[in-house]
Amino acid sequence: MTAAPTWRAQGEAKRQSILDAIPSKWRLETVIPSAAAQPDVTGDYIRQFLNEREIKITESDAVDIVAQTTSGRWTAVEVTEAFCHRAALAHQFVSCLHEVFFDAAIEHAKVLDAYFAEHKAPLGPLHGLPVSLKDQFHIKDVETTMGYVGWIGTFQGKPTDSRCGAVESELVRELRNLGAVLYCKTSVPTTLMSGETINNIIGYTWNPKNRLLSSGGSSGGEGALIALRGSPGGFGSDIGGSIRIPAGFNSLYGLRPSTGRMPYQGAANSMDGQNVILSVIGPLAPTARTLTLLFKSVLSQEPWYHDPLALELPWRDSIVQETLDLVKQAETGKSALAFGMMPFDGVARIHPPIARGLELVEQTLKRLGHKVIDWCPPSHVEAHELAGKAYQLDGGTDLKLQFGLSGEAPPPQIIVKEGGTEMIASEIAALNVAKREYQKKYMDYWNSTAKLTGTGRPVDGFFCPLAPHAAVIPTQYEQTGYTTFVNVLDYTSVSIPVTFANKFVDVLPAEISATEAEAYIDWDCKFDLEIETIDHSDNEADDAETYHGAPVGTQFVGRRLQEEKILTLAEYIGAAIARDTELA
Amino acid sequence: MTAAPTWRAQGEAKRQSILDAIPSKWRLETVIPSAAAQPDVTGDYIRQFLNEREIKITESDAVDIVAQTTSGRWTAVEVTEAFCHRAALAHQFVSCLHEVFFDAAIEHAKVLDAYFAEHKAPLGPLHGLPVSLKDQFHIKDVETTMGYVGWIGTFQGKPTDSRCGAVESELVRELRNLGAVLYCKTSVPTTLMSGETINNIIGYTWNPKNRLLSSGGSSGGEGALIALRGSPGGFGSDIGGSIRIPAGFNSLYGLRPSTGRMPYQGAANSMDGQNVILSVIGPLAPTARTLTLLFKSVLSQEPWYHDPLALELPWRDSIVQETLDLVKQAETGKSALAFGMMPFDGVARIHPPIARGLELVEQTLKRLGHKVIDWCPPSHVEAHELAGKAYQLDGGTDLKLQFGLSGEAPPPQIIVKEGGTEMIASEIAALNVAKREYQKKYMDYWNSTAKLTGTGRPVDGFFCPLAPHAAVIPTQYEQTGYTTFVNVLDYTSVSIPVTFANKFVDVLPAEISATEAEAYIDWDCKFDLEIETIDHSDNEADDAETYHGAPVGTQFVGRRLQEEKILTLAEYIGAAIARDTELA
Repeated sequence: MTAAPTWRAQGEAKRQSILDAIPSKWRLETVIPSAAAQPDVTGDYIRQFLNEREIKITESDAVDIVAQTTSGRWTAVEVTEAFCHRAALAHQFVSCLHEVFFDAAIEHAKVLDAYFAEHKAPLGPLHGLPVSLKDQFHIKDVETTMGYVGWIGTFQGKPTDSRCGAVESELVRELRNLGAVLYCKTSVPTTLMSGETINNIIGYTWNPKNRLLSSGGSSGGEGALIALRGSPGGFGSDIGGSIRIPAGFNSLYGLRPSTGRMPYQGAANSMDGQNVILSVIGPLAPTARTLTLLFKSVLSQEPWYHDPLALELPWRDSIVQETLDLVKQAETGKSALAFGMMPFDGVARIHPPIARGLELVEQTLKRLGHKVIDWCPPSHVEAHELAGKAYQLDGGTDLKLQFGLSGEAPPPQIIVKEGGTEMIASEIAALNVAKREYQKKYMDYWNSTAKLTGTGRPVDGFFCPLAPHAAVIPTQYEQTGYTTFVNVLDYTSVSIPVTFANKFVDVLPAEISATEAEAYIDWDCKFDLEIETIDHSDNEADDAETYHGAPVGTQFVGRRLQEEKILTLAEYIGAAIARDTELA
Repeated sequence: MTAAPTWRAQGEAKRQSILDAIPSKWRLETVIPSAAAQPDVTGDYIRQFLNEREIKITESDAVDIVAQTTSGRWTAVEVTEAFCHRAALAHQFVSCLHEVFFDAAIEHAKVLDAYFAEHKAPLGPLHGLPVSLKDQFHIKDVETTMGYVGWIGTFQGKPTDSRCGAVESELVRELRNLGAVLYCKTSVPTTLMSGETINNIIGYTWNPKNRLLSSGGSSGGEGALIALRGSPGGFGSDIGGSIRIPAGFNSLYGLRPSTGRMPYQGAANSMDGQNVILSVIGPLAPTARTLTLLFKSVLSQEPWYHDPLALELPWRDSIVQETLDLVKQAETGKSALAFGMMPFDGVARIHPPIARGLELVEQTLKRLGHKVIDWCPPSHVEAHELAGKAYQLDGGTDLKLQFGLSGEAPPPQIIVKEGGTEMIASEIAALNVAKREYQKKYMDYWNSTAKLTGTGRPVDGFFCPLAPHAAVIPTQYEQTGYTTFVNVLDYTSVSIPVTFANKFVDVLPAEISATEAEAYIDWDCKFDLEIETIDHSDNEADDAETYHGAPVGTQFVGRRLQEEKILTLAEYIGAAIARDTELA
């Protein structure tokens, strides 16, 4: 019998240290029921461990919270403590935290309260608001592992680097200036290149709505924590869907801004310097207006003077106003907004709950009086291939290095693989050209819709799935094309919650055509058509049963750098969908 | 005796066809004097071949021209013909054109005149304005060779590509929408990677002010043509100084905008897809306000909806106004603007005329009441090394391919070389990280000047040389670091004319210290200090004599994406310098 490898023990020790960082008063004494016995730990389940005041605070959205904290009605300390408590519970239910530093957070909250007492004014627009961060951001006296065992006790894997525990990422600096309170860092899959969240430290981050399913990835810890209201909002990153997927899998809003709007400066990353498709930072939250609050607040810090890759593009109120004017015009009965609808990307057939979700969206848009057109863009197969090449640019050199630090085994869900070939400069140049040409084709297609919309303009955005499925069954996330094409195009995109998978509603019709059957092929493996599909051969059980209750989101995609417009519309449309689906 | 290679004959045939495209009425019948006999062909020399009306039109700047053409006082045809004539002369003097299509231009001008007659209004803000273009832009029925013999009769070297003569670059489309008239394309060095303009088609593009010197590069044809007022303004491109150098060498203004402001879509390029340092498009012109006119007009076409790499960043009048307010405040005696001054980058010592030019700039700034501080940024050696790696990324694969099409010999002035090694993905990623870290250091330094300026802000920009020398002696341009660092940083930068080299003024003092001597080392080879210098061993003659009369410009550098501010200040400061140096 061989001894367990060292890296496993190191990972376990770190996992235990995270639990140990939770104050004993917030440690659950009772055994947590199994996922099968208690799949859903949101809502009433988690509330049983909280008092009324804590529930009131943690179930307020960030806009309401800062209304209280910036006016002195709620103290930073009470808000921080409530979220720390709820985050502690969340982690114990679904394993969503990499770092816990509640003591430092409460000390910081005390400083903010003292500031308010002295100045009779808040430090900034986020005064006293707890904000969670994906474990890529460096915070003083806090570790960053990004899930790598080999990064424990180091600075990004470098054991003797003096920056270890000593530096803060630019976003962290700005959040502190804004008055936010940092209190935890959330889990990620090692490499960040996965739609599930798994690593050799915290294990697997489960979906709070159904703990047999994934919380998504790579910002899966953010998704799970915010779904449980252990955070009112946080920041993740997205190179292929890593903000939008966990937002969608957890009934949240999540913004993937275009490159250059949010400061990445000083954050850890995978394949740092790969610049064919750049990872971007963006917020996740239960409400669209929280995304706006966080995004706008960060921009008020002028990141372009501190991050060389950030664009000098302040929040544009004028675009918000123009957009609201269009909404108002639509309310008078005159069609002023138009949207594309793309339920199928030509690659991955979607499950019935996703199809139903998009139908609900379309119904809402039409009820609101907007034009909806079929979205028939240039082949998404091409986008998917371009993205795949970009992610695999270095042939796995970086991930081999990082996993090699400890000798740990890469989780099977990681979509990049080691042992590939490094692309050379002229190949990368050709890839950049191919990507630009694809972007140009897509742009021309977008422009061409002006003749179909009736508004005199091309569509204002379009809707499509976030994934072929709702919050996924572990190991079965194999088609990421519904999110990666946005990264190829560098478009603005927001996840909007829609509904939940329902085994009673999302059933196959008694009689369906071959074409219709294609759409259901992955749902119960009843059909065997020759199209590219997810291989569910190892899971012959009833998917409809397994997915029951899983959140279903949609993706709302806008043009590049149109965050103000897309956030404004996401708030408007999301509220209407919620009303229509009785989510609200 | 071996036959001359085919490529030489092909290049000569193309050179002859350019001359043949000039109407015989504009062909010079007399033999043009040698460069030694008539070095300066600007001003009175070229005027002798033009009538009063042509001189009036061609010596008006673009702002004055469009005031006439958009109000119907001047016709598009008369303006176009005047510039065609003067461009024809310019080419015969200094070899600055790759393509001549005056007939098509005059036909187009007629259409514009008809439009005006019908609508009593101009087609756009550039109605009837001739605009010259560097030979990277595709125009229908016109060839693009970029100086390569192997591109003659092809689309970017591809003989059977149906786009040959059939497509137009995005900038061309926008200029036509704006009412501009296209009539010629200007010379470039093959590969675009040289501070001189030379190729196997048109030979060498000489400096109109002194035909023994270079017009600069790579937009050297633009520089020479505009210096002779054969164009009121045009567009070049800049990956290492290729707009600013020919502007500076020809007493012109030239803008190197940050990446993403001007549309590169559909233009030919070298090493297309290399995206560590991107080439950018920008205008050159005799006046700063022409740069603004051209830049602002193009932005009015919303290139971001047609070029996937263009940023949605319209012309910002508010920044112009803020800047003018600061200027106005300075006029009241209260210091409101502050500038850095960097006469030496730590690599290449500058010649006396350049040093004197910067002293003149500093005197003007002080006369205007502005604060001037020493600019002591992070090492420019590092920037220079980063740029060198980026330019050589593919080990010369692209240039080998392009020269190989015809078998032609690369001109020795090309700074990239074939036979190198292609960098691999992880090396390129490391280079991107190193570049970003350098940008961050520079940014932090810039921010740090806030404590020195007395304005409450960091410097508003800084001044430095464009090159160690004035318009250069052929083959002696060996230090490009004064311009390439800007491309590494992606800063906004404008060339501003200052003075002319003067052998009577720019002399060595009778007694100088060793330190002072360093600054003069390349001037007359009298000193032999151990610093990195230009090797002038093959040119022991008196440089002061050779450089006499060569234009001396300065470079004014602003932060990234601050084109509105920098153009506004360039116009203000440039006018003040001109007043002070009696240029005006």
